[in-house]
Order: sequence, then C-alpha cells, then structure tokens
Amino acid sequence: MRLRFVKGHGTENDFVLLPDLTEEAFTPALVRALCDRHAGIGADGVLRLARDGAAWFMDYRNADGSIAEMCGNGARVFARYLVESGRQRPGTFEIGTRSGPKRVRVPTVGGEITVDMGPPELLDRATSVAGVPATAVSMGNPHVVVPVSTPAKLAGLDLTQPPTVVPPLPDGQNVEFVYRAGPRHLVLRVHERAVGETRSCGTGVCAAVVTTVHNGRDGTGEEWTVDVPGGRLSARWAGTVELTGPAVLVAAGGWLLDRDRLDGGQLILGTG
Amino acid sequence: MRLRFVKGHGTENDFVLLPDLTEEAFTPALVRALCDRHAGIGADGVLRLARDGAAWFMDYRNADGSIAEMCGNGARVFARYLVESGRQRPGTFEIGTRSGPKRVRVPTVGGEITVDMGPPELLDRATSVAGVPATAVSMGNPHVVVPVSTPAKLAGLDLTQPPTVVPPLPDGQNVEFVYRAGPRHLVLRVHERAVGETRSCGTGVCAAVVTTVHNGRDGTGEEWTVDVPGGRLSARWAGTVELTGPAVLVAAGGWLLDRDRLDGGQLILGTG
Repeated sequence: MRLRFVKGHGTENDFVLLPDLTEEAFTPALVRALCDRHAGIGADGVLRLARDGAAWFMDYRNADGSIAEMCGNGARVFARYLVESGRQRPGTFEIGTRSGPKRVRVPTVGGEITVDMGPPELLDRATSVAGVPATAVSMGNPHVVVPVSTPAKLAGLDLTQPPTVVPPLPDGQNVEFVYRAGPRHLVLRVHERAVGETRSCGTGVCAAVVTTVHNGRDGTGEEWTVDVPGGRLSARWAGTVELTGPAVLVAAGGWLLDRDRLDGGQLILGTG
Repeated sequence: MRLRFVKGHGTENDFVLLPDLTEEAFTPALVRALCDRHAGIGADGVLRLARDGAAWFMDYRNADGSIAEMCGNGARVFARYLVESGRQRPGTFEIGTRSGPKRVRVPTVGGEITVDMGPPELLDRATSVAGVPATAVSMGNPHVVVPVSTPAKLAGLDLTQPPTVVPPLPDGQNVEFVYRAGPRHLVLRVHERAVGETRSCGTGVCAAVVTTVHNGRDGTGEEWTVDVPGGRLSARWAGTVELTGPAVLVAAGGWLLDRDRLDGGQLILGTG
C-alpha cells in the first residue's frame, strides 16, 4: 500500500525514481500524480527500475506520462542510485534505455558521473532562428543550435514561447541558444520541445558541443565546459559524445496511498 | 544525519512538515533548500513541529525562509499530521501559531478540517483596482477584495504582475478577484503579496466571504463555498471566520544528508 521513491536531480533536472514498481502499475495517471509539483512529489519525470537481461533498465517517462527514449540527466541520477543502493559497484557499467544500452562511469567516492550518449548525427538542413543561421543535429532526439553573440543577448531571450525555426524539423526540435564564453566553454539556454524552457537538457548540451566543434576550428576529442541555468556539465565528442555532470539523491521515502498511516512520524503500512 | 519529513497540501498549497527538527537548526538556508522545487523537495513553505505548553506549535516559514504569522491551508495540514501520527485524537483541539492559538476540528475518519481563523477587521479605506471599487480587510494579514462580473473576466486576468491598488495599503496587500457564481458560492483568484498568483490562499478565502457579506444582503453565520484554482474551500463568518477544506499527506521520508546511504532502496543512517 506504499510506493517507495527516491527523489534526485542532475543540474536541477529532477526525477522521482521508483525502485520496485511493476510495469503494469506504471500508468500515465500515476506518473502525472507523482510529478505534480503541488499535489504530488513533483519532478520533470519518473525513472522506473526494471531489468534488461543482466543490466538495469531505465524505464523513463516525462511528467505528462508520455514515453521518452533517453534522458542524459536522468541516466546519471539512475546510475547514482544503482551504486548508492548497492545494485552496482562503482566504475564503468551499462544501463538499458529505449535508445539502447548506455555506458556509464561512476567514481568510487562522490564526484561526477559520465554517460556515453552515443554518436551525433549532423542533419543536412539549412535552418535559421530569427534570421540567424542555425545547425541541426540529432542526439537520438532533434536539436537546432543557434549561436548568440553576447551574454546580455542570451540573458534577454524570451523563451516563454517556442522559438520559430525556419524551416522547422519534421518532428519539431529542441532549440539551444549558445554563447561562447571562452576556450572550450559554452553558456546555454534551452527550449525543450513540448516542455518549454528548462534548467538543463543533457542531449542539448551534447548538441551544442557537437555543432560548435563542427562549425569552428576546434578538433574533436576535447572536453568542453557547458553552463546551463541549473548548473555545470561537460561534454566530449570523440565518435560518441560523453556527457559528465553531477547527480544528487535528495530524499527517499514512501508515497502515501489510501491505507497508509503515520506512526509517531514514521511511515507504516496500513493493516485495515 | 537524516531529516525526517512529511509532504502535504491543502487545495494545492503545499508544505514540507518537519516533526523533529530543533529551532536552532531551522535556518532560512535549510528552508530554502527544502522548498527548492528542482534541487530540493519543493513546497510553498515549511511547518516545523514545536511545543507551546500543552499544545503543538506550528512554526511556519515561507519558501524564502521568512517568518509568517499564520497560514490557513498549512494549519489544516499540520492538524491532519497531528492526528495521523497519533499526537492528537480526532475532534476539536488547539494549535499554537504566531498569531495566537487556533481552534481546529478534525473528523474521526477522512473528511475536511476546520480552522478558526479569528475575527476579521474591516479596514476603513477606500481603495480601487483598475477603477473598480474594492474592499480592504485584515485577517491578521492585509487583503483587498475586488468583485469581477463574469467568469470570462476572472479567467482572463493577467496576474503575472502585482495588481495596482489605489491607494495601496501601508504594508502592501494580497489581492483577491472574486466572481459570485451563485447563492453563497464564490470563485476566486488571488495574487499574494511578495509571492505572485497562487493555487490557494486561506486568509484570502476568508477575506472574500467577509467582504461579500459585508457589502451585500446576506447575513453572517452562513457557510459559503469558495472555489480556488487548487480546489474547493468553505468559510463561515460568525464573529470569527471558520475555514474548512481538505488536507492531504502525500509522502513521508528522509531528506538525504551527507552521510546517508541507500540500502536496497531503503534509506538507512550513515555510520561513517
């Protein structure tokens, strides 16, 4: 009668993680109730632990209950939980996702987690946003990356509405606005498709580094620092793109269902 | 090394409740970290359990860490927790608040909780909002109540900025826009001072009923239904104002501090 959860975040992209829910019980209505920021626990999405042969599978859903292929920030939180709960030893291991197995690296003590996000696919499409030429790239999901010339212009962008991409990609796109702050250092704001502006977007950070390297004089294989509103990530493009950043487990507990009661402040199972 | 919490809400005004934190440890920084909706647990405020002689005292803080006198929605959640945790028997009892002891009534099984919010003070001040005459009233905190003639006008209000009250009250004000939907039935939207539009405001609901009765032909002593964006409340003015509504405990758990670890998904105390 009680649903155990862990709440965690990566650069303020936050998740409710469910260690022991069955797939049948993982309904869109449950996901929406959990993610409700006032009547529920509140999160950008839910990570359900499942099995995928010998590996753990990240069954990820968006806050609206829809299925998503992959989430870079979520994968770090998922990997952190696997190690903290004793399900995986620190080091390098694979997790299953809907866009295939992903290699993750979790250091022994604290520190940042790296996820191999797979190879980018530069899309042969001329696009622009407000007259500025942009670069289209897929990281499994579609991105359009727009350079911005000054920090003030980046800060002044109104992202309360989806940016107008001309022409748009067939399935829509996430749009990253990127200011180059210094050598291998980007600052980014992102408007996520069907979500709005977010504090962080893992695939968006990868897309920003890939397009900047592709369009400029930097070679591949170098580590780039990328500041997002929710914190700092880094990414390295060397065939595939490795994304590195923090993953924090914030709280753990039980979601109170009908028959639960509190006993002296401790959650217990209802017996009635 | 672990901070126990319960998350609850009343008409989607949500709170983190702390059963066993000392006053010294209840710092503004801790409150802000707990209430952060992406990096913390997320809430509109924190309710710390304390003692006030024989009664339980609701030590309430806003999400920004500031002290607030009283919170009607929070008082219901607080009372629900006292009963669910076995600290109080259902029925009528008092809780301590910074604006004095408040009488609450908790039914034996489920149901809605009533809080006596004390007497209103009608303020002898002519005010208006966008040319519409408004009524000023204090429920311990200052309110300006503005009638709205149609549901469409209520829905169409832009409350992203504070409404301009002419002249403003000395300490600022919460502003309630109220459409009268039928006999003893109001629909309300509220802009809270220094917060913005909220899903619900307990003292605002009381202020709306008091001013509507004061300005109209209805007598006191009747129960009014008031719909807010986060749900339905009711209020009755008979000397004092009784506010009645739901209070839901959503989750219980521990906030993970440095040395906590997860063991098979269960939170345990760190030993290192």
